[in-house]
Amino acid sequence: MIVEMRKNATPEEINGVVQKAKSLGLGTQLNVGTDKTVVALLGSNTGQLSTDIFAVLPGVENVARIMKPYKLASREFKPQDSVVSVSGIEIGSKQIVVMAGPCAVENEEQLMKAATAVKEGGACILRGGAFKPRTSPFSFQGLEKAGLELLARAREQFNIPVVTEVVDAHDVSLVSKYADILQVGSRNMQNFALLTALGKSKHPVLLKRGFSCTVAEWLTAADYLLAEGNNQVILCERGIRTFEPSTRFSLDVCSIPVIKRSSHLPLIVDPSHAAGHYALVPAIAKAAIAAGADGLLIEVHPNPKEALVDGLQSLTPSDFARLMKELRLVAKSVGRYI
Amino acid sequence: MIVEMRKNATPEEINGVVQKAKSLGLGTQLNVGTDKTVVALLGSNTGQLSTDIFAVLPGVENVARIMKPYKLASREFKPQDSVVSVSGIEIGSKQIVVMAGPCAVENEEQLMKAATAVKEGGACILRGGAFKPRTSPFSFQGLEKAGLELLARAREQFNIPVVTEVVDAHDVSLVSKYADILQVGSRNMQNFALLTALGKSKHPVLLKRGFSCTVAEWLTAADYLLAEGNNQVILCERGIRTFEPSTRFSLDVCSIPVIKRSSHLPLIVDPSHAAGHYALVPAIAKAAIAAGADGLLIEVHPNPKEALVDGLQSLTPSDFARLMKELRLVAKSVGRYI
Amino acid sequence: MIVEMRKNATPEEINGVVQKAKSLGLGTQLNVGTDKTVVALLGSNTGQLSTDIFAVLPGVENVARIMKPYKLASREFKPQDSVVSVSGIEIGSKQIVVMAGPCAVENEEQLMKAATAVKEGGACILRGGAFKPRTSPFSFQGLEKAGLELLARAREQFNIPVVTEVVDAHDVSLVSKYADILQVGSRNMQNFALLTALGKSKHPVLLKRGFSCTVAEWLTAADYLLAEGNNQVILCERGIRTFEPSTRFSLDVCSIPVIKRSSHLPLIVDPSHAAGHYALVPAIAKAAIAAGADGLLIEVHPNPKEALVDGLQSLTPSDFARLMKELRLVAKSVGRYI
Amino acid sequence: MIVEMRKNATPEEINGVVQKAKSLGLGTQLNVGTDKTVVALLGSNTGQLSTDIFAVLPGVENVARIMKPYKLASREFKPQDSVVSVSGIEIGSKQIVVMAGPCAVENEEQLMKAATAVKEGGACILRGGAFKPRTSPFSFQGLEKAGLELLARAREQFNIPVVTEVVDAHDVSLVSKYADILQVGSRNMQNFALLTALGKSKHPVLLKRGFSCTVAEWLTAADYLLAEGNNQVILCERGIRTFEPSTRFSLDVCSIPVIKRSSHLPLIVDPSHAAGHYALVPAIAKAAIAAGADGLLIEVHPNPKEALVDGLQSLTPSDFARLMKELRLVAKSVGRYI
Repeated sequence: MIVEMRKNATPEEINGVVQKAKSLGLGTQLNVGTDKTVVALLGSNTGQLSTDIFAVLPGVENVARIMKPYKLASREFKPQDSVVSVSGIEIGSKQIVVMAGPCAVENEEQLMKAATAVKEGGACILRGGAFKPRTSPFSFQGLEKAGLELLARAREQFNIPVVTEVVDAHDVSLVSKYADILQVGSRNMQNFALLTALGKSKHPVLLKRGFSCTVAEWLTAADYLLAEGNNQVILCERGIRTFEPSTRFSLDVCSIPVIKRSSHLPLIVDPSHAAGHYALVPAIAKAAIAAGADGLLIEVHPNPKEALVDGLQSLTPSDFARLMKELRLVAKSVGRYI
Repeated sequence: MIVEMRKNATPEEINGVVQKAKSLGLGTQLNVGTDKTVVALLGSNTGQLSTDIFAVLPGVENVARIMKPYKLASREFKPQDSVVSVSGIEIGSKQIVVMAGPCAVENEEQLMKAATAVKEGGACILRGGAFKPRTSPFSFQGLEKAGLELLARAREQFNIPVVTEVVDAHDVSLVSKYADILQVGSRNMQNFALLTALGKSKHPVLLKRGFSCTVAEWLTAADYLLAEGNNQVILCERGIRTFEPSTRFSLDVCSIPVIKRSSHLPLIVDPSHAAGHYALVPAIAKAAIAAGADGLLIEVHPNPKEALVDGLQSLTPSDFARLMKELRLVAKSVGRYI
Repeated sequence: MIVEMRKNATPEEINGVVQKAKSLGLGTQLNVGTDKTVVALLGSNTGQLSTDIFAVLPGVENVARIMKPYKLASREFKPQDSVVSVSGIEIGSKQIVVMAGPCAVENEEQLMKAATAVKEGGACILRGGAFKPRTSPFSFQGLEKAGLELLARAREQFNIPVVTEVVDAHDVSLVSKYADILQVGSRNMQNFALLTALGKSKHPVLLKRGFSCTVAEWLTAADYLLAEGNNQVILCERGIRTFEPSTRFSLDVCSIPVIKRSSHLPLIVDPSHAAGHYALVPAIAKAAIAAGADGLLIEVHPNPKEALVDGLQSLTPSDFARLMKELRLVAKSVGRYI
Repeated sequence: MIVEMRKNATPEEINGVVQKAKSLGLGTQLNVGTDKTVVALLGSNTGQLSTDIFAVLPGVENVARIMKPYKLASREFKPQDSVVSVSGIEIGSKQIVVMAGPCAVENEEQLMKAATAVKEGGACILRGGAFKPRTSPFSFQGLEKAGLELLARAREQFNIPVVTEVVDAHDVSLVSKYADILQVGSRNMQNFALLTALGKSKHPVLLKRGFSCTVAEWLTAADYLLAEGNNQVILCERGIRTFEPSTRFSLDVCSIPVIKRSSHLPLIVDPSHAAGHYALVPAIAKAAIAAGADGLLIEVHPNPKEALVDGLQSLTPSDFARLMKELRLVAKSVGRYI
C-alpha cells in the first residue's frame, strides 16, 4: 500500500502514518520527493487491509493499493489451474464443458424434452432453475422443491449431472441433495450469508459474476467460498451492466483473459443472459470459446414461444444442435474439444 | 405494450401476435403503417407481463413497454405521499429526518459516544450496523447479536429510535426485537427471499437502492414489500456505480425528483456511502435536501481514525454538529425544517 | 412513434397530439385502453423526428420511438452486405482483413521495421498515426505532415495500403493524398464537422465507435457520411467505457452480432485499445473473429519498450506473427480466411 | 509513480526499471517487500508521463500513478480560486451567475422573447446556440452565422453578455466577434484541435464535461486551454452517461465538491441537459447551488412546444421566473446571492 502525503504535510503527520503502520505490524519506507513524501507500507497481507485506515489520517492526500484484495482465488497463491470434477467431467481441462437447459423448470414434459435436446446436442451438464429470483413479485417464482425433484428425475433418466440455483443460505443442504453443482446467481454474488453457507457445504459451486461487480470483487467473493474450505469453485461471466441498450447486458469478453492471468479457477460463460436474444447467442458463445473460456451455460427450451421465463434468449433444440456443431470447430481451432 | 412487426411480416405472423394476446386476456389494436405494422396490446396489467412473451414470436422486430413494471409503489396507484411513522417521527412529512451514527457498532464506548454526538447534533434516529456485509471474508464482519444488544441499550438511554441492517431472511424476527427500522443494504436490494420476509414482518423498512439498479427496478423491489402488506417503506438513494473513479459511487441526484414524480414513498439520501470521503459529505447532504429528499443517513464516528469500517467517510462529532447547522438553513430555504 | 397519454388526459390534450402530428404530415391511430389512451404516429420518417416534439405537449406521459434513429446505415434500407474495396482488398467479404502497425509514426526506422513485421505476419493494411489526439497537452502529439510522408514511403516500399487518423475537417484533403483509408477516432465519432467533410471526400473512412456511444448513435454518425454520398464506410468497435478497471475499456463483443443484424456496413475490431495490455490482445482478437467481425486493427511496434505512445498495448513482431497463425485457424473454423 | 514488480522478478528486471527511470531524469527508491519489490519513481513531472513506459518492461506487474495527470488546472498549482470576469460579471465569486436562454437560436422573435424572459427573471448572461452539433444529419443544424448576428443584436438590445457554442477550430475567430463566452460542447471536450485554437484566442471559454469523461480527463482538457495561455476558463458539469434510463444523463453532483477541492477554476452546472425534462430542472438546479456550484446554465424558451431543439427540457418564462425566486433562497442559505 502506498500512502501519498499532501504537498505540505508536516513531519508529525508523516510520523502519524508510520506509527499507524507499525501498530498494524507493517514495515514502512519513506520516499521524500521534490514535491511530496510518499510512504510505502510493506507486509504480506496489505491487500486485506482497508485503505481507509490510512486515508483518514491528517496530511494524507491519497492511498493506493498495490496488493490485490483477493488472495485464495489468485494465481499468485496457486499458480497451476484448478480443475473441478463433477461426475467425471473435468471443468477447467482441455474439454469445453457445455451446460444447457431451460431457464426455469416448468413441468415434467418441458424438462424431459429439454434434457433430450441437451443430451443429443452433446452438452454434458443439464441446467434448470427451481428457485427463480424475479425482479417483480408478480412474476413466476419457480416450482421450488417440486422443481428440484423433476431435476433429479431428469438426472437419473438421462445420466447427466445437474446445476441449479440456490437463493437462500438455509436451502443449501436441501438443494445439495438434488443437484451436482449449486449456482449462485448474479444478484447474490455478494450475498455473504449464502457464500459462507456454500463454502461450508463443500459442494461444487458455480459463482456468477454480479452484473455490476468488478473482476476483483468477483474473485474476492470467491475467497468467501475458498476461505471456508470449498475449493470446488467455477466462475461464470454473464455480462455487465453498461449504458448500451441494444443487449440486455454487455458481455465482458476482456474478463476472460484477465481472469486466466489473475486466477487459477475455471471460468465458463453464459451468452444467453448477456445477449437477452436468441439470435445473438451463437456469435457470443463462439467468442467466449475463442477467448479461452472453459465452458458455456446456454439456455435451451423445447418451445421458447411458450416459456414462462426468458423465452427470448432460449435456443430451440434444433438451433442448439446446429450451434454445438459450430462450437466444436471453434474449440478445435484453439486446441480444445467439446 | 407495443409490438412492432418486421418490415415484411406476414398476415399469419401478425395474427400470431393477436392470438397470443387474446390467450392472455388482452385487447389488441393494429396500426398498419406505410412500412410496418404495429400491434398495441391493451389491458390493465401489461406492466407485469414480460416483453419476451411477444418478442419471441415469429415476425416480431421489437416490443416496447408502455406501462411501468412496478405497480404498488407508483404514484398512479396512490397519488398522495406516504408517511412512515417511527416512534412519533414522521418520515415523508415537512420535517427532514436525519439518521446518523457509526457504520459498524464496535463496542459500548464507541456507540454511546456516537449516540451522544448524534443526539446533540439534532439527529432523531440512530444508525449502527451489527451485521456487516463485507466484500472480503478477511474483513471485520460485525458484532452480530452483541451489536444489537448495544443498539437497544443506546436506544433506551438516549430515547432515540434505531435503524440497523438485516442481511438474512431468517434474522428478520431477531433484528425486529432490537430495531425500529430494518435496513436492506444495497447488495441485497434484489435478495427477494429477504424482501418477502420483511414484507411479512410489517416492521418499517429502509430499502437502499442497489448500486447498479435502475429506479424502475428499485420501485419494483419495493413492490415485493408492499405486495406482502408492509407499507412502511422508506427508500434510500446511496449512489450508483459509474466510470468516475474520484468518488466511491456517483450520487444520482436526478433520482430524487424522478422518484417524487413516480412514487408516493418517502425518500432519504445517504451521502456518506456515495462520496466515500468525509470532506465531500456536507456538499452532497445539502444538495440532497435542496433537491427534495425527505431525510439523510449520515455516518458519524467519535474517532474516525480508529474506526474498524469506513472511517474515511465518517464525520467527527464536531463536523456533524457544524453540518447540522448548515442543513437547517438549506432545509428552511426549501420550506422544510430539521 | 408511440405517445402515451397520462391517466386522466382530457380529450383536448389527446386532440393536441393528433393535431401536432397532422401538422407534421403524420398519420395517427388512437388506442383507448382501460387506463390510458395511446396515440400511434404513422409515417415513414418518424425515426428522424425528435420525441421531444410530442413529449412536451400537455397530458403526455411518455413518448417511445419505434423506428430507429439511423436510416442509411440500416439493413432495412440496404439488406445486402456492403463491401469496401481498398486497392483490391475487399473489407466485408469472406476474407478477414488485418490492419496492423504502430499507434504513432515515430521515425523512419521504426515505421519501416513495423511495416516489415506487419507484411511478414500477413496483414494487408498498414496502420500508423501522424496526428495524435492526446488526453494531455504535455504528451507527444504526432509527427503530423512528416508522419504522413513516412507513411506514403512505407506504402510504396511495401506495396501496402495505409490507414491513418484525421482529426480536423480542414485536414481531410491533405490526409487523403497520403492515405488509403481515413480513420475517425473514438473521441471524434460525434465531431459532425469532421464527419461532413469526410462524407464529401468519397475516400474510404474507418469510423471508430465513440467509447461511450450506443450502437444506435454510432450508426447515426455513419449516416452523416452516407448522407453526403460517401458509402465507403467501415465501422470499428474498440471498447466502451464501463466501471471495470482491469482493462482500459471493455470490448462490447455483443455489438458484433447486433451490428451484423442492424446494418449492412463492414465491421472490424480493435482489440489493442480495448484491452490496453498486449497480453490480452490475442484472446480478444480471436473472440472478435469468432463473433463475426470482418477484420482487426492491431497495434504492432518493433520495440514496444521504446514506444512513445501506447507501448503497453503493442505486440512485438514475433508475438504478432504467432497471433496471425492462431487467427488463421479461428477464421477457418467460422468459414473465413485471412 | 509506483512500479510494482512481479513476485519473482529478477534483479536484472528491477534494474531495467531503475535504468529507464534514470534515462528520463527521474530519481528512484526501492522497497523490497516480503513478497515483491516496489520501485518508487521520484520527480516533479511524473504526472505527465505515461504509465505505459514502465508497464511494458519485463518483470513489471503494475504501475500506479500518484501524481495527477493534470497540472495547470490543479489547486496544488494555484491554491486560490480563479475568477473569470465577463463584462463586469465575476464568475467564481460570491455571486451565483445564471446563464439562460434557448438551446438553439431559431429566429429573431423567439430570441428576443427569450432574452426578455431571461433578463426579467434575473439571469445575467444569455445563452443560445447558432452552431448545433446534432446526433442525426437529418436534424436542424442551427442558423450558423445568421444566428450569431441575432445573438449580437440581443446582446446590444438587452445589454447582456452572450455565451454560444463553437464546434470547429476554424470558427473561433468568427464566433469571438459575436460572443462574450465561447462554449465547448460535451462531445468536443476532447477535440484537441478546437481546444488549442481556443487556448490561443484568450477569449473566455465555457468547457463542458464530456459525458463519459472523468473529472481528471476534464481538468486535463482544461490544461490544453491553460497551456496556451488562456486562463479565462469556466468548467460546466452537465451530467454523465450511466445505466439509468429515467433521465437523459445522470448529474454527477459529487463532482462539484471534488472539483472545488482539486481545481481553482470556477464551475457551473447545466441541469437542463442532465435531466432532459423541464419538470426535473428546478430540483437539480437547487441541488447544484447547495453543493457549491458557482452558477447555472438553464434552457429557457418562450414557447417550448414549438422549439426546434430540446423543447422538453426548456423552461417557460413563467417557470423560469418562479425558479429564480426559489434559487435566491437556496443561494442565501449557503452564504451566496444571485
